[in-house]
Amino acid sequence: MSYKAPLDDMNFLLNQVFNVEKSLGEIDNFAEFDSNLYGAILEEAAKFSENVLFPLNRTGDEEGCLFEDGKVTTPKGFKEAYQEFCQAGWQGSNGDPEFGGQGLPKALHVLVEEMIYSANTSFCLYPSLTNGAYHAIHAHASDDLKQTYLPPMLEGRWAGAMGLTEPHAGSDLGIIKSKAEDNGDGTFKINGTKIFITGGEHDLSENIIHLVLAKLPGAPDGPKGISLFLVPKIKVNADGSLGEANQVTCGSIEHKMGIKASSTCVMNFDNSEGYLVGKENRGLFAMFTMMNLERLSIGIQGIGLGETSYQLAKAYAEERKQGKNASGETATIIQHADVRRMLMQQRANTEPGRALAVFMGMQIDKQYFHSDENVRNQSAGIMALLTPIAKAFFTDKGYEACNHGVQVLGGHGFVREWGLEQLIRDAKIAQIYEGTNGIQAQDLLVRKVCLDKAGLLEHLAELIKQDLALDSCSELASKYKTQLESSLVEFTDTATWLKQEFAARSYEVQGGAVDFLHAAGYLVYGWMWLKMVAALESSEDSVLKARKLAAAQYYLEHQFGSLSLHCEKVKTGYRALMSLDNETI
Amino acid sequence: MSYKAPLDDMNFLLNQVFNVEKSLGEIDNFAEFDSNLYGAILEEAAKFSENVLFPLNRTGDEEGCLFEDGKVTTPKGFKEAYQEFCQAGWQGSNGDPEFGGQGLPKALHVLVEEMIYSANTSFCLYPSLTNGAYHAIHAHASDDLKQTYLPPMLEGRWAGAMGLTEPHAGSDLGIIKSKAEDNGDGTFKINGTKIFITGGEHDLSENIIHLVLAKLPGAPDGPKGISLFLVPKIKVNADGSLGEANQVTCGSIEHKMGIKASSTCVMNFDNSEGYLVGKENRGLFAMFTMMNLERLSIGIQGIGLGETSYQLAKAYAEERKQGKNASGETATIIQHADVRRMLMQQRANTEPGRALAVFMGMQIDKQYFHSDENVRNQSAGIMALLTPIAKAFFTDKGYEACNHGVQVLGGHGFVREWGLEQLIRDAKIAQIYEGTNGIQAQDLLVRKVCLDKAGLLEHLAELIKQDLALDSCSELASKYKTQLESSLVEFTDTATWLKQEFAARSYEVQGGAVDFLHAAGYLVYGWMWLKMVAALESSEDSVLKARKLAAAQYYLEHQFGSLSLHCEKVKTGYRALMSLDNETI
Repeated sequence: MSYKAPLDDMNFLLNQVFNVEKSLGEIDNFAEFDSNLYGAILEEAAKFSENVLFPLNRTGDEEGCLFEDGKVTTPKGFKEAYQEFCQAGWQGSNGDPEFGGQGLPKALHVLVEEMIYSANTSFCLYPSLTNGAYHAIHAHASDDLKQTYLPPMLEGRWAGAMGLTEPHAGSDLGIIKSKAEDNGDGTFKINGTKIFITGGEHDLSENIIHLVLAKLPGAPDGPKGISLFLVPKIKVNADGSLGEANQVTCGSIEHKMGIKASSTCVMNFDNSEGYLVGKENRGLFAMFTMMNLERLSIGIQGIGLGETSYQLAKAYAEERKQGKNASGETATIIQHADVRRMLMQQRANTEPGRALAVFMGMQIDKQYFHSDENVRNQSAGIMALLTPIAKAFFTDKGYEACNHGVQVLGGHGFVREWGLEQLIRDAKIAQIYEGTNGIQAQDLLVRKVCLDKAGLLEHLAELIKQDLALDSCSELASKYKTQLESSLVEFTDTATWLKQEFAARSYEVQGGAVDFLHAAGYLVYGWMWLKMVAALESSEDSVLKARKLAAAQYYLEHQFGSLSLHCEKVKTGYRALMSLDNETI
Repeated sequence: MSYKAPLDDMNFLLNQVFNVEKSLGEIDNFAEFDSNLYGAILEEAAKFSENVLFPLNRTGDEEGCLFEDGKVTTPKGFKEAYQEFCQAGWQGSNGDPEFGGQGLPKALHVLVEEMIYSANTSFCLYPSLTNGAYHAIHAHASDDLKQTYLPPMLEGRWAGAMGLTEPHAGSDLGIIKSKAEDNGDGTFKINGTKIFITGGEHDLSENIIHLVLAKLPGAPDGPKGISLFLVPKIKVNADGSLGEANQVTCGSIEHKMGIKASSTCVMNFDNSEGYLVGKENRGLFAMFTMMNLERLSIGIQGIGLGETSYQLAKAYAEERKQGKNASGETATIIQHADVRRMLMQQRANTEPGRALAVFMGMQIDKQYFHSDENVRNQSAGIMALLTPIAKAFFTDKGYEACNHGVQVLGGHGFVREWGLEQLIRDAKIAQIYEGTNGIQAQDLLVRKVCLDKAGLLEHLAELIKQDLALDSCSELASKYKTQLESSLVEFTDTATWLKQEFAARSYEVQGGAVDFLHAAGYLVYGWMWLKMVAALESSEDSVLKARKLAAAQYYLEHQFGSLSLHCEKVKTGYRALMSLDNETI
């Protein structure tokens, strides 16, 4: 049982579907890169993921992280793998060249991330959090802080962590209690306890840079009184060398359902020294810069785990003999209809997710680096709309895929030995952290649709309509266009209905938020499939072509239609549910 | 966080919905029992489940079973709880009084089982397997074997286990390799290795009675050449006392995703002494007597875990403060629409499952004990049809409910401390063992519908139509009747389509088996809700009434409609999927 990165599909997306070389080539930062370079990088990432990270996935799960005397030890092999990861420059691949990064586009980086999540989700979380912290510092911190902290973070010598949640404050960050006091010398005293801090403490890097939300004295109540601070585990001297410890201690680690090789820490800040990032009381705003990137990243966790589950389940199904096939001969179980259905359903939902991740990566590249402000704004808008959809739908479908993988193996899927059940346990958290999928659905329905004044959904509809005019002649592409067109109408009608109802009864209609998000997910997956189907017409890779057309057809026949049911459920309106007293729930 | 048995709902089902006292009262075996007795028994089972079993649930999961030198040690407290279970007579509650059982109806027993699964699924599996083995022996073994083995099994002094699966043979039992040889003295030599044997070895009982499938020399190939043998772990002397060990050894136990306090064993039979149960080569037939009861039992595991997840999640949601409510005040999360939706969805699917379990319990009681052969046959027919639906739909919906429970708690659901994630892990296996849910769906579609000559589905439709004529005047009941009537038409049309297509392309249409089963599940759940809604009209318990009507309304508005989508998916036909070569899957 091994993981093999789906390089053929990844290169197909970069080159045939999105032509990333050309479309990002018009941005100065990426003008020098070409598809050969992209292909070579994917190949290196594949080797590292397949040969170094995947073999540590099950052992990491079995061993877990160890907590003793305030120290966290990662499982055997993680330290060496992390060294190798850093030395190969992976931590800086998407980073700003000014601080030592390679400045590769996000459109490529999402695929590298997918492979790492596929091979070893627990491992992936350490660099992924560093990456998120890097982006928040890069976007909001002073030049001094950037010069001091970003280069070692891009090397991976220093890792990053996000300190948001407190025991009483999770989804509702407005009520945090951690406090910051101005020392008057450019530093602040930070006090408080944070929980559920991924990578809050570990033995992989020399230092850990915590981004911590805290309240300054006299700050307004609620989300508008929260500031963001950079708090290193070890203080940094003026010359960038490490100084004394900063009273940032790990109180314990959580024992969890999955991602056991990723440390989830209770962190205590005890008069720790910190630095303000961004403006006073604008901490949530600064944090959300990073959160959107992290949300896409966590979405990709879902895609990666779905892909791995598919690969392991398919390998088993091709070997395992059980029952007879249609000709009465002993069958491998991949010949049985229901096993085929489950495997194909995994792939039919993983592949459009991957395509959407690349599409979103390109939007991020444009949002940050395009010379035309209109393009930047449009890309930011499309990202605002797609981020909650991607985070929640990628992970819901990824979790579904991991469950199908176990089901393909039957009893062998439930025992630890085969590694399939671990994927369920590792995928579960992706539906929860970085904002639960329920919170994502609320964000989509309330902020991105009902209260939106920027026409986000109209813009998405425009993009989809452009592709309805795609020049393609296959029967499957025509069928997709017909279905996508009517699905778009159904979805936008539902959105219009929601907007109308929202003013009078916003709390009620939020009962349909998750269904609305799922409808949106089926819509954009259908859109991605159309793009892929159209691009396949000129593909010369007959194996890839046959495989992708098969999954596209499956999606069209057996998945796309779910959109209607979700739209209908949204329109039921949830009046009765919201009128009940708590006891009656 | 504690579990409280839903006695109000259970008594409502027994007394108001099904009037079990009256409808089973016409059967001699149950003529003496009344609803006071049933209520008292439920209350005792509740106390035992809440106070003895539930407190051992998390510790059992943390500790797991220990395997050393061929011996299996169950977690701390399990032995004492098992003693108490036996002393209170629970093992024999549903057993034949001729062998020391109490002869209580299955309609009651399903509710007792539910409580035990709710409180501690791992524990429940030990007596549940004994119960299954008891029934197979009772139905098929010689009087001698019955006199020797059944009384201590009904006391729980001897436990039972089922030896079916082998390393290469799971769903396909026709290819097993275990061998039996006639010793010529009424005993047989049994050789072979069985895997995934629940309760194959443990420290709870004095003896373990294995029912083992094996092949006699010269037996026909495939399922028609398999015989069933009773193989005790320790031989039994003529006077019923324990003799020498029978070379039945445990080779190892599995490390699993869940049900960690239930031993899952590799069992080696090495010239072990066994006794034929039933006729030569008719072993699968005898085993299936037990399998249908076990399948219902495993279905109930899904209901029980869904109930527990609901209770724990609701308790958390009533305490946890986060965000604001519609009036702008600090809210407990139960006030948020999406949390309400998840909690209500748990209950909307758990409660009709419980009702169907009682209904099926009554059918079993009639099937075995009714004086009228027609009634016996009709009940057997309805059980044949409902068993795969119950096993798969109860457990799919139970798994969904456990996932919703975790989601309600967010990050706290993912850490072990709160106990919610264990419920997912414990529920997962119920979708797999006793025939995967895919196999159940195939059984329903192929054997119970497409190849059925007994009119099983027509009989179910008759029963449903009778209830469409129920005397009830509430608006909700009317809406249910309308929806149930059209759903029944839609479902039977789909079944008719399947039968027509099946002859020409049976392998293709099996791609829709799981969707067909889910459509059936939504149909019978809607039917059960109608029965409950009608019975509520005369209920005087205002709290129960309000709660159940709320869940009924939720099911009608937000769940019942899923039936159509599943029917549509069945009719897509899966031609394209089945035409692909393996590589393209």
